[in-house]
Amino acid sequence: MPADEFGIIRSLFAPLATHAGARGLLDDVAVMETRGALVLTTDAIVEGVHFRADDPIGAVAKKALRVNLSDLAAKGAAPIGALLTLIWPEQRPASQIEEFARGLGEDLHHYDVALLGGDTTSTSGPLTVSITALGEPLGARVPARADAKPGEDIWLTGALGDGWLGHEALCGNWPTADAVHRAAVIERYRLPEPRTAIAEIVARCAGAAMDVSDGLVGDAAKIASASGVALRIDARSVPLSEAARAWMAQTASFGRLLDWGDDYEILFTAAPARRAEIEAGGVAKSVRVTRIGMVEQGARVRMEGADGLLADAGGGYAHKLGR
Amino acid sequence: MPADEFGIIRSLFAPLATHAGARGLLDDVAVMETRGALVLTTDAIVEGVHFRADDPIGAVAKKALRVNLSDLAAKGAAPIGALLTLIWPEQRPASQIEEFARGLGEDLHHYDVALLGGDTTSTSGPLTVSITALGEPLGARVPARADAKPGEDIWLTGALGDGWLGHEALCGNWPTADAVHRAAVIERYRLPEPRTAIAEIVARCAGAAMDVSDGLVGDAAKIASASGVALRIDARSVPLSEAARAWMAQTASFGRLLDWGDDYEILFTAAPARRAEIEAGGVAKSVRVTRIGMVEQGARVRMEGADGLLADAGGGYAHKLGR
Repeated sequence: MPADEFGIIRSLFAPLATHAGARGLLDDVAVMETRGALVLTTDAIVEGVHFRADDPIGAVAKKALRVNLSDLAAKGAAPIGALLTLIWPEQRPASQIEEFARGLGEDLHHYDVALLGGDTTSTSGPLTVSITALGEPLGARVPARADAKPGEDIWLTGALGDGWLGHEALCGNWPTADAVHRAAVIERYRLPEPRTAIAEIVARCAGAAMDVSDGLVGDAAKIASASGVALRIDARSVPLSEAARAWMAQTASFGRLLDWGDDYEILFTAAPARRAEIEAGGVAKSVRVTRIGMVEQGARVRMEGADGLLADAGGGYAHKLGR
Repeated sequence: MPADEFGIIRSLFAPLATHAGARGLLDDVAVMETRGALVLTTDAIVEGVHFRADDPIGAVAKKALRVNLSDLAAKGAAPIGALLTLIWPEQRPASQIEEFARGLGEDLHHYDVALLGGDTTSTSGPLTVSITALGEPLGARVPARADAKPGEDIWLTGALGDGWLGHEALCGNWPTADAVHRAAVIERYRLPEPRTAIAEIVARCAGAAMDVSDGLVGDAAKIASASGVALRIDARSVPLSEAARAWMAQTASFGRLLDWGDDYEILFTAAPARRAEIEAGGVAKSVRVTRIGMVEQGARVRMEGADGLLADAGGGYAHKLGR
């Protein structure tokens, strides 16, 4: 396998770039015809921060794409294309890039995303994958964090907990997990499921919306702050994964289930008149949607029914930068 | 100064994001109205690879943006917006982010680019800045590498040599440089000048076009290969900076002047009927444009008049990835 950047682009990534505007990744720029609104997002994942050095490299490629697709889905947008920046460690075998490209290719196909361009370079540091994703809005507006109104319901897709527990299991911090739960949470930590299937419902029904990549408590606080409202959440109604319920049964605590990140579910608000439509949409798309609270006048997040069980109700994940 | 990512985004980067669609960098995505073609590019710079650890941090921010603007200009496109991914080392003082943001802000303003979004995270490795830039074509087509035709002239903007010599000077490899040349090449290595001013001429007149970020010899070879033509370049007509001419006078060699990168000039081809228009355009925009050769039938680059003076005429810079 070639180990220089142009050989790798030509042999491994160019075959993935089937969109005519990508120019086979051999032309410095991509050219895309557009009309109307474009939704743009960029998210990077770094070895040792967002994934572990021993995570399967194909899963790393998929995770880098999926965290971006999660942002698009949470804004009611369908993915169109992506640009990839691959910063490869000098000390990591170049032969792994083939598996990286294969994983990326599988997800580009699965989520119908065009690889439009990219950049590859080497680094003395950890593997870093930065992706910029472009999408088109599926509705007339792109829900903002600032769009929540008092009286709206608060909804959450899927179930929380596997992101944190997967990380805990990999760190050896959940020795009492049974084998099935352990495998499930590790798989989910490595391969979050962007809620692309539900993006159309979000576009049609949501007031405010965002994904909960930094933890439910902290991300709900961002909606509360941006919208100038209070979010009252009933902790007992927050959907938890089967593994998370097993963990709670063992520990009688929420631990970090509600304020850790890495779950990539969609948190959104919607008028009560939309309840039947949202529930039917979830059934139609096979995505669980659960009402977990209400938007009220006021400020901040009030997490009810979790008295003494939350490690840090004011939290939410924020990277500390530098020293 | 806040050292967590949200505080830094709010206080330092959000004030730079004045475009309404950027949503103040506080909403996970940007929303941009578009029509017609969009030109997209992404380029990352890594400490120790594309810049030096002791380069002024404001210049690093500018360089990250400028290498992307150079790609847009070389394709005859005007910049619209950019998304920034900032991967900040755990060991670098967070206080430097303020100067980074100031430098970035100056260039966003100077080149009229909207900051549309971004991501910040920490790393155990070197500082890494990845930017995705969006532009709009200034002409009916976006010149590709594959668009060169036999009979066309080959043109180069500006002058080569300062990128390599700047790097040499900083590495202590040019001890005989006089102080003025030394300062000039270091400045230019740190702050390349994207040829945005000439993008309109490129859009109107160019056949094939690209920037020469990886060295004239190697990048000309990419045009030759993509277009299925030969590029005959007269080495004596290649414009060299004043410092590069001084270096040649001292060493009687081209050294790596013609096959090192980091100069960010535009290499393009154009029909001979365009000569007067291109020359007038260069004068009007105060950008030197020089005819350096001809496109011919055949294959590869023939560099004439540099016999025995080129260290590696088949070269051009390519990152080696991994081990």
